[in-house]
Amino acid sequence: MAKPTDALQRLRRVHEDAVLDALRSSGALSRTELINRTGLSRTTLFAIISEMVERGAVVEIEAPVSGARGRGRPATLVALSPEAGQLIGLDLARHRVHLAVANVSHQIIATGMEDVPEGAGVTEQAEAAVRLIRRVIEERGVRLGALEAIGLGLVGVMDDPVLPAGIVPARYTPVTELLEREFGVRVAVDNNARLAALAENTWGAARSVDDMVYVRWSVGVGGGFIVGGRLVRGAHGAAGEIGHVSLDPAGPPCHCGSRGCLERRIGGRALLESCAARGILLAGLDALVAAAQDRVPEVCELISAAAADLGRILADTVVQLDPERVVVGGEFASLGSLVLGPIRAAIARLSLPNSPRAIEVIPADLGANASAMGAIALLLHEEPAIPAHLRPARD
Amino acid sequence: MAKPTDALQRLRRVHEDAVLDALRSSGALSRTELINRTGLSRTTLFAIISEMVERGAVVEIEAPVSGARGRGRPATLVALSPEAGQLIGLDLARHRVHLAVANVSHQIIATGMEDVPEGAGVTEQAEAAVRLIRRVIEERGVRLGALEAIGLGLVGVMDDPVLPAGIVPARYTPVTELLEREFGVRVAVDNNARLAALAENTWGAARSVDDMVYVRWSVGVGGGFIVGGRLVRGAHGAAGEIGHVSLDPAGPPCHCGSRGCLERRIGGRALLESCAARGILLAGLDALVAAAQDRVPEVCELISAAAADLGRILADTVVQLDPERVVVGGEFASLGSLVLGPIRAAIARLSLPNSPRAIEVIPADLGANASAMGAIALLLHEEPAIPAHLRPARD
Repeated sequence: MAKPTDALQRLRRVHEDAVLDALRSSGALSRTELINRTGLSRTTLFAIISEMVERGAVVEIEAPVSGARGRGRPATLVALSPEAGQLIGLDLARHRVHLAVANVSHQIIATGMEDVPEGAGVTEQAEAAVRLIRRVIEERGVRLGALEAIGLGLVGVMDDPVLPAGIVPARYTPVTELLEREFGVRVAVDNNARLAALAENTWGAARSVDDMVYVRWSVGVGGGFIVGGRLVRGAHGAAGEIGHVSLDPAGPPCHCGSRGCLERRIGGRALLESCAARGILLAGLDALVAAAQDRVPEVCELISAAAADLGRILADTVVQLDPERVVVGGEFASLGSLVLGPIRAAIARLSLPNSPRAIEVIPADLGANASAMGAIALLLHEEPAIPAHLRPARD
Repeated sequence: MAKPTDALQRLRRVHEDAVLDALRSSGALSRTELINRTGLSRTTLFAIISEMVERGAVVEIEAPVSGARGRGRPATLVALSPEAGQLIGLDLARHRVHLAVANVSHQIIATGMEDVPEGAGVTEQAEAAVRLIRRVIEERGVRLGALEAIGLGLVGVMDDPVLPAGIVPARYTPVTELLEREFGVRVAVDNNARLAALAENTWGAARSVDDMVYVRWSVGVGGGFIVGGRLVRGAHGAAGEIGHVSLDPAGPPCHCGSRGCLERRIGGRALLESCAARGILLAGLDALVAAAQDRVPEVCELISAAAADLGRILADTVVQLDPERVVVGGEFASLGSLVLGPIRAAIARLSLPNSPRAIEVIPADLGANASAMGAIALLLHEEPAIPAHLRPARD
């Protein structure tokens, strides 16, 4: 619930947002125009503007001279700083670091990636991330003086011991510390499947959809939910772990400690093992997807059955969260109806079929950079997505 | 996501909230004090205040005379109107209408209930609700001139054909129309299990808990989720339907159109049938709960097994939503560890056991009036709980 005490804190953020929105939609505005647009007092508006000038979020420019404006000092306008508010998004995936850079207008202006060796430690991943950032900003001529914050997507549950400064899991502090040291900005973290959900909600297959279920079906199975327009993190940063819903409480043990988890049955690794057990030896996930695209019957059967299992779990999620759209990402999503068909059928059959609702099930729009882009979205949509203690320091 | 275009709309609501919060926490304040407290411009503040005076939300009072204040007109203070902002919450349950009345300080000042005959139509329910309101306000001396809005809890999914004016399911429009006609205020509706969740989050077992799963285990099985401090409604008003998660897609058909639904297996009606099949004839839900309290072995076994089924579904919900607390309401919750034990065990076993989290499973605090109280909470927490089109008209 909105606590009464939140209101005054919220006020300042809403004031800043209102100023930024006015500038985004109208370009440069005078302080008087901003006062009229936002309803803020002169004192409040001036204080907000000078603080935003200070931190480089907005700049003061001279108004173009016009006859109607009359005599006196040329008016000063306030505008979004063209170099302000650059954001970097990183995704430390299992074998690869992905990068995206966004400008103040929330446009992605550069992306990149760098492989890290299988089994690389957190420090190696962090160093690869720093190299990747330096390389991309050099190649693309991105100026780093305007960098405001770094968003970081990580594998796994975020509920490790909580540090005083934030909720970065202890195992990842070498990464955040290195990034903070190298680039002098705050680093916000979240689970990378959740960030992919946020990216699809910001730029992709569920843009502006307020209630959305995202599942990433890849080597593992992850997910993220947008509920009422906000990313769901959970009380311990563990929300969205669709892959660890149990299909069978008596099933084989999973690394999460439970049994019969969805990921254990339909994750890329499990499907490769199932193929191998049938004498179909495939080099990896890409080969598995390619075999399905080539319509190898056993592979298609396996994946279709796996999609039905996924659909059954998603049907439960749909019953509980009642989304407008279900977005399926990850490598398997490229298989189209082979995968989407069984999911749609399960949802139609098991999710309140007598209360007909238009729940779309569609493939994700964004590719391998989705989580890095989501890490930028995490920074952009501070209010809904970042808890207060994670918000980049503003002064 | 917070859309840029939302910000200015949000602004006005936040301004009003800030004024109300300041008045709630400090009592009467002068306009100058309110300007200082809220950072609003004189123009904005005066406009807001005069609009709030007009609709009776605040009143102007004379400041107590004090030496320091000096000469001139006595200062006028603004205060919350003691008679403003009364809210009525109604719950049209299956056989009974529940009522709660709250004052401007969000205190429940009266409750009441009235039975309606089994199988009563919507119109009969509505008439019973009007009678109940009239009776309670007369008995308790509640003045209705200050009534601001009525919240209404309803059984079932809210995704029936949407009316232009709101999301009241078509089958309930006779109720909302009668209430609007009789009392001249807007009526906001929501599912009554979700409203019970909201009430527990506002006054009960999960007060101020931002991430909470609520299940109501009674004749049926309903639920409601609070995620990031907000009630989850879903895209079609159907979120929280835990009772219609399928335990067994090949199981017996359910009225919702799916098969093997949790409610079909563990709802009070199903358990009474199971008892009957074992030769234990019980008059109804109260008798079933009493038999369990009397430790009738077969009844305890049945209920304990049902709690394990519920726990299995709740474990999935916990994996996906990662709440801080699970609250179990409804008649079965009064059975304590017989019910909570198996639920806790299932969650501990199936919800990311290797990522130890403190997830409490506790019984609900509020009784039969929970949903009526939740209907008041729906009105109180307008911003998080009521979509814009449901918000009581303000001018």
